[in-house]
Amino acid sequence: MALTRRALLGAGAASGIAAAGIAGYEIGASSSDEEAVAGTAVPFTGRHQAGIATPAQDRLHFAAFDVVVDDRRSVQELLREWTAAAARMTAGRPAEPSAPNALLPPTDTGEAMGLGPSQLTVTIGLGPPLFDHRFGLASARPAPLQPLPLLPGDELDPERSGGDLCVQACANDPQVAFHAVRNLARIGRGTVVMRWSQLGFGRTSTTSRSQSTPRNLMGFKDGTNNLKAEDGAALSRHVWVGSEGPAWLRDGSFVVTRRIRMLIETWDRASLQDQQETIGRTKTAGAPMGERHEHDPVDLRSGAIPADAHIRLAAPDTNRGVRILRRGYSFTDGFDDELGQLDAGLFFIAYQRDPQQFVELQRRLGANDALNEYIKHTSSAVFAVPPGVRSGTDWIGRGLFEAPN
Amino acid sequence: MALTRRALLGAGAASGIAAAGIAGYEIGASSSDEEAVAGTAVPFTGRHQAGIATPAQDRLHFAAFDVVVDDRRSVQELLREWTAAAARMTAGRPAEPSAPNALLPPTDTGEAMGLGPSQLTVTIGLGPPLFDHRFGLASARPAPLQPLPLLPGDELDPERSGGDLCVQACANDPQVAFHAVRNLARIGRGTVVMRWSQLGFGRTSTTSRSQSTPRNLMGFKDGTNNLKAEDGAALSRHVWVGSEGPAWLRDGSFVVTRRIRMLIETWDRASLQDQQETIGRTKTAGAPMGERHEHDPVDLRSGAIPADAHIRLAAPDTNRGVRILRRGYSFTDGFDDELGQLDAGLFFIAYQRDPQQFVELQRRLGANDALNEYIKHTSSAVFAVPPGVRSGTDWIGRGLFEAPN
Repeated sequence: MALTRRALLGAGAASGIAAAGIAGYEIGASSSDEEAVAGTAVPFTGRHQAGIATPAQDRLHFAAFDVVVDDRRSVQELLREWTAAAARMTAGRPAEPSAPNALLPPTDTGEAMGLGPSQLTVTIGLGPPLFDHRFGLASARPAPLQPLPLLPGDELDPERSGGDLCVQACANDPQVAFHAVRNLARIGRGTVVMRWSQLGFGRTSTTSRSQSTPRNLMGFKDGTNNLKAEDGAALSRHVWVGSEGPAWLRDGSFVVTRRIRMLIETWDRASLQDQQETIGRTKTAGAPMGERHEHDPVDLRSGAIPADAHIRLAAPDTNRGVRILRRGYSFTDGFDDELGQLDAGLFFIAYQRDPQQFVELQRRLGANDALNEYIKHTSSAVFAVPPGVRSGTDWIGRGLFEAPN
Repeated sequence: MALTRRALLGAGAASGIAAAGIAGYEIGASSSDEEAVAGTAVPFTGRHQAGIATPAQDRLHFAAFDVVVDDRRSVQELLREWTAAAARMTAGRPAEPSAPNALLPPTDTGEAMGLGPSQLTVTIGLGPPLFDHRFGLASARPAPLQPLPLLPGDELDPERSGGDLCVQACANDPQVAFHAVRNLARIGRGTVVMRWSQLGFGRTSTTSRSQSTPRNLMGFKDGTNNLKAEDGAALSRHVWVGSEGPAWLRDGSFVVTRRIRMLIETWDRASLQDQQETIGRTKTAGAPMGERHEHDPVDLRSGAIPADAHIRLAAPDTNRGVRILRRGYSFTDGFDDELGQLDAGLFFIAYQRDPQQFVELQRRLGANDALNEYIKHTSSAVFAVPPGVRSGTDWIGRGLFEAPN
């Protein structure tokens, strides 16, 4: 690449509008390369994909895609290209190596130039329909990878649900997250079309002990008792696929996404006491009802936490020890003409070793949770998330596509 | 308030779930009060409303409202309440003083608790329909406050255009901006309904010499030659309403908003040379074509900048010296089923002394700009923006409502 850049700078010195343009663009690419070393980059390679146990970044752009071709090789090539572009972008570099001249479209759309890596992570998942008849993958489908069953309280929009592939881009700058999704969509043109996407403007979970607990749009601290990146044993037990899964998915996970619309106007009219009894925590401190501090243990035997409070029904003790790693984001998609209300809430994302963990939890919550009066689930999706790549030549999903069948 | 807080803490000490809840909430309000001093607050009072010449913050939540009552006093009362709440929130405090007990809804929705002022500004405007027959304001309508005429290339969605009132909330944390709009909507319930809203995730303008130039979603630096807060004389000439306007609007301004959808997929397929000739600048450096550095002067007589390049047609020299203060934001509203493309672009916001400044510019751009191939204007609105308030008892628009008629 250094050679190319020198060559182009030579062309630039020869002047002419087009040449000046090229040189300018190349110089930019070079300064982006330097930013890659700037220290805000999350390593792309590893045993697991980044963006799962990575401390949750502030902003999200999530997208689901449908494959529009029917040959296996195209999907494979796409995953290889996506992996390479994700590795580059998470290091703060352009999505692809520079185009050789100005008469071609730029190989990066440019809006993240100068913003640095911003702790970008790109996490790629494979949805149940990818394992249908089209690509010869049916026999490799992990048994737990099925569309989620209808759950109590579901009001799902099928057009905003499901998908063959997903990309979760998280970063501390929303333009960096947008840029990642946009460029993967650009690279995928002709092979995939975007099915739906979701922007999240504020994280609602902590996934590391180093992080403070954020507030969701109900105004409550959310995720106090979430699994943390530092709990290696708990992650192995609850999040990472082990020997029960196919070889290609070991050290991977399953992600469940749920767009949970909050009935903001109804919630805002509820009294503070109602709100606190609904959640089971105090609003300001985030302490379990009857306790004083956020991290005081949740004592389900005390009478302070109502029988239908959210934290009681979601607690591992109420669910045979089931835990999931939550990684959700607050969203607003403007204004809903039909209801005359803000269209806002929580884009719930959870990683678990088996989607059944989520299903069990949600069955209990959907049937009894006091919170149901104030929310509805409007979209749902599940994806298998392959393990990370170990080297620059590896690609996400390779174990699936190259497995002896 | 100190008395109230002490009283409630006393009640909290007496124990009981509800009391503990109140105490917790009050303690939070108190720590929020302390944050107000933390130095990230933009002063709310002043000759002009904040959020116009204020250095553009990173994130935006803009909302337009329709008044649903027909008495003048309600509108007046709403503007008084909005002013008080805006003053509190921009200082990092809850939207309203705390409710006296936990059996009432909280007076602040809570999701910005702990986030600090985050340089929040709240800017309030009055749209043309407010001056119709309903509120006895027809004779006070400033002559230039008319719905914008149909402009070349308009493909406007009327449901996303216009409005009686507008609120522009800008902050460096998107949750703080969302919180401001949500709480003003909550306070306005029964008097106004939200007509449309727009989230912006990245600023596309510099409004201060202290800021670097950001990139828009075309990947180009945007706003290099924008008016700057430091150019007092230019702002007086181009932005602030002077003696030509009604007394109640002097030191105010007019804001024009345009939702400009970018045809991202088409743009991304254009060659670098096409893109640069369309804009008239180089992509990486942001230099005018034929120059080397972003801030090199734009020389319209050199042959380097094509006749239909955006910066040529938008330049003051091409427009009899007309200038506007741009304050736009990049947006994405997900995915457009109809076009099968990303729904993303620029939410253009401009402040000017007379909306005609924008109309003249846009007539020229809409008719000839090479950029038109890649964009369409999908919403449009204009509002008169009253001057700032000078004291804690004043309110935005008071000069209009209390003027001898």
